[in-house]
Amino acid sequence: MSTNTPTPPAAPLQRDASLPLAHQLAQRYAERIRQRLLLPGARLPSVRECARHHGVSPHTVVAAYDQLQAEGLLEARRQRGFFVRETRARPPAPALAGGPVPRQVPLDATTLIRGMFGTDTTRAPGSGVLPADWLDIGLLQSALRRAQAGSPDLHVAYGEPAGDARLRLALTRRLADLGIQAAPEQLLTTAGATQALDLITRGLLQPGDAVLVDDPGWAVEFARLANSGMRLLPVPRHPDGGPDLTVMQQLAEAHHPRAYVTVSVLHNPTGSSLSAAQAHTILKLADQHDLLIVEDDTYAFLAPEHTVRLSALDGLKRTIYVSGFSKFLSPAWRVGYLAASPERTQRLIDLKLLSNLTSNALPERAVAHVLDQGQLRRHAERVQQRLDAARSRSVALAERAGARFVSPPRGLFGWIDVGVDTERLAQPLLDAGWLTAPGVLFSATRQPGSLMRINFATAQTAAFWRDLQRCIEALRGG
Amino acid sequence: MSTNTPTPPAAPLQRDASLPLAHQLAQRYAERIRQRLLLPGARLPSVRECARHHGVSPHTVVAAYDQLQAEGLLEARRQRGFFVRETRARPPAPALAGGPVPRQVPLDATTLIRGMFGTDTTRAPGSGVLPADWLDIGLLQSALRRAQAGSPDLHVAYGEPAGDARLRLALTRRLADLGIQAAPEQLLTTAGATQALDLITRGLLQPGDAVLVDDPGWAVEFARLANSGMRLLPVPRHPDGGPDLTVMQQLAEAHHPRAYVTVSVLHNPTGSSLSAAQAHTILKLADQHDLLIVEDDTYAFLAPEHTVRLSALDGLKRTIYVSGFSKFLSPAWRVGYLAASPERTQRLIDLKLLSNLTSNALPERAVAHVLDQGQLRRHAERVQQRLDAARSRSVALAERAGARFVSPPRGLFGWIDVGVDTERLAQPLLDAGWLTAPGVLFSATRQPGSLMRINFATAQTAAFWRDLQRCIEALRGG
Repeated sequence: MSTNTPTPPAAPLQRDASLPLAHQLAQRYAERIRQRLLLPGARLPSVRECARHHGVSPHTVVAAYDQLQAEGLLEARRQRGFFVRETRARPPAPALAGGPVPRQVPLDATTLIRGMFGTDTTRAPGSGVLPADWLDIGLLQSALRRAQAGSPDLHVAYGEPAGDARLRLALTRRLADLGIQAAPEQLLTTAGATQALDLITRGLLQPGDAVLVDDPGWAVEFARLANSGMRLLPVPRHPDGGPDLTVMQQLAEAHHPRAYVTVSVLHNPTGSSLSAAQAHTILKLADQHDLLIVEDDTYAFLAPEHTVRLSALDGLKRTIYVSGFSKFLSPAWRVGYLAASPERTQRLIDLKLLSNLTSNALPERAVAHVLDQGQLRRHAERVQQRLDAARSRSVALAERAGARFVSPPRGLFGWIDVGVDTERLAQPLLDAGWLTAPGVLFSATRQPGSLMRINFATAQTAAFWRDLQRCIEALRGG
Repeated sequence: MSTNTPTPPAAPLQRDASLPLAHQLAQRYAERIRQRLLLPGARLPSVRECARHHGVSPHTVVAAYDQLQAEGLLEARRQRGFFVRETRARPPAPALAGGPVPRQVPLDATTLIRGMFGTDTTRAPGSGVLPADWLDIGLLQSALRRAQAGSPDLHVAYGEPAGDARLRLALTRRLADLGIQAAPEQLLTTAGATQALDLITRGLLQPGDAVLVDDPGWAVEFARLANSGMRLLPVPRHPDGGPDLTVMQQLAEAHHPRAYVTVSVLHNPTGSSLSAAQAHTILKLADQHDLLIVEDDTYAFLAPEHTVRLSALDGLKRTIYVSGFSKFLSPAWRVGYLAASPERTQRLIDLKLLSNLTSNALPERAVAHVLDQGQLRRHAERVQQRLDAARSRSVALAERAGARFVSPPRGLFGWIDVGVDTERLAQPLLDAGWLTAPGVLFSATRQPGSLMRINFATAQTAAFWRDLQRCIEALRGG
């Protein structure tokens, strides 16, 4: 993934300063690299461009680049120029929801997700996202072009508060395919599924509320709830199915939680999905205890057809359905949505207005085109096929390396047991340049253990599994 | 402004129902019009299209459209088809921050802003925004095209958490022009200035905190603070200058507020700006009482050069600067930003990640192009010239109608006294099809009075001022 190189700040170099110009220039770039304004892999301006930009001689630039190379910050690639080095000395930032965190840094979900941006997924078997080159730039560009051509006015209008009407209409059809009947006025578009979950937390829950969550589960959701003052009640998630219903019942009786937040289908990190019977029992329990159910269906497009959704059984009475297009279409466009009862949707629209005002209708309209033309389904099929192949390879490599799949490998993520503390394991793997996702990150109570999450798309590299084995042996020996 | 007509929900009409098909079809459209999913002025599908879509005969569609016409919801335009009527019987939704609210509806800022979308600004002398046709679609399209062409990868990457690096760099230059020195790492892009203000409220203030606000001021900011549990301390804003510093001092001593939220330049609704001396005194007072100052510079691009900013004097130590591009470039793109101390910026980046994850880098990159090429400055100059002419006309009309300018007419808004209760006045004007902005909407304590805000760009119509005079006389006579 290439990264654009911003020109360094326009402030002129100090010609009368005690520091030579080359040194000043090197310092300026070094600072930008350390601040991650220039990311690993970014190409620096050519010597000529840089010289012109700063009004210095090419010799000065060469001297500055040489100094940066000597400091290990840059590398020269033959006939291609100078690039910010994928340095191992300074560990790369952790990957989303699963990136490892250097031991000296306190574990923190927002620290985690801050690192996902610019991470090279080929070195991130713990990544939470598909590699960028699995997405379809051509499809995106043409959809956006059509959205603009059809409605140039979209540029100069505040979008509708509930989101683009065409997209909401297309989504009613998409939801109907999942067995969820929702009228357009029950739908609200959001800046990714993230904003949907945030609006629900702020608009429908109160600080101090107890909230049931799947454990293991998604670290950022834990962080979001905790940040809003909620008390988390972890419910053990079966490696191959739903939550432990007995525990759930006990927690509900003891703590009177207000809500249950869950990924019902292709759960992160286990890959498990609810059975229809489990879904039915959860809804009965929710009725008994007056629980709001937040169903996060982020991985909807990888799920087999006819997988049951809580929202379908319940008819969006006490369920809120959340999904989006960041994972499989475009992370940049920030198009997500929720479907809820008309009354809840109205309340959340008000909150959306106070938070972001409206959302950008152009990418929303473009997504509507993609949905209406069946392009998303075809794209999802291609991704699924590619992922199936990747999963086979990753599973074979993992098993050969002695890892055990705790849950049957499905969807994007594998949940494996490697027999040693994965938090400890993360550090030598990071030193070897691999970003992993130790199980502690998925524990609502931050319990370390021997589990870890792998991303089937990015764990296909034999070299990773060799390094993993080596590091495990070293830990056991040590 | 043309509006696209979404096809009605795909759920088939009930052929065996007791209700005739034409009636069912009419009901479905009526509901969509009432829910404002079909906006006034939207064209309905042709009879043939509609018949094909629903699998009914053209006769059925004609009967349904006739029924809707009879109900006053549609109008036929010769040789052009059927359109949703700009109905007066059902009052149009109120305009942003100032639209009038039908008396029977409780006054509420989120209700207010929900109505701004799709409002015809030619009938909205109380509107809070520029007419859409004052914005430059061509400029926007070409900037977006260039952003895409230069970096197609932006479609498939999560943006940087702090926002596009190029935009942040361009913004450092923009801020330097205003005398505000900020490094790129002090900048955070947001979904419009709205998200910046929301993040600050959530991330740096606590429920229960007392917050100083300008009175009159911006109703949505009052709503946002109140919604987050803040206690508002209104400081009277002089019609031609800054806040009442004596009152401010007294409130600070009595209530120990945590922050002061203000529009220092071209204040909404008075159009007044701080003098340098006032800014200096406010900052001294802020130092004494350890106040955070949130400087909302939404109207920056209309301000004369060298207008003083609190953030420039203070150097972003206890000030946070907020601005954006929604008002003068594109409301749809949702590009806003804030500049703060490096530490506060870091904290707000974390919160942005939990709220929206990242922002869309494409429009951000496009805004960077617009800034780098000086296009925004030229566009702002054109808007300013046009606004100067509009202001002259509006002021002449207003004075001829007997209105008195409480503060000297500047910027986008006029703050006028019409001698009767403007909340009462809003209703007959609404009946006559005019959206106005009664002073009660700008009062932190919701005091009615004889003041109202006009938008110079949309108050140039003589017919409005005639109706205003007529309604004032009727109120006085009654």
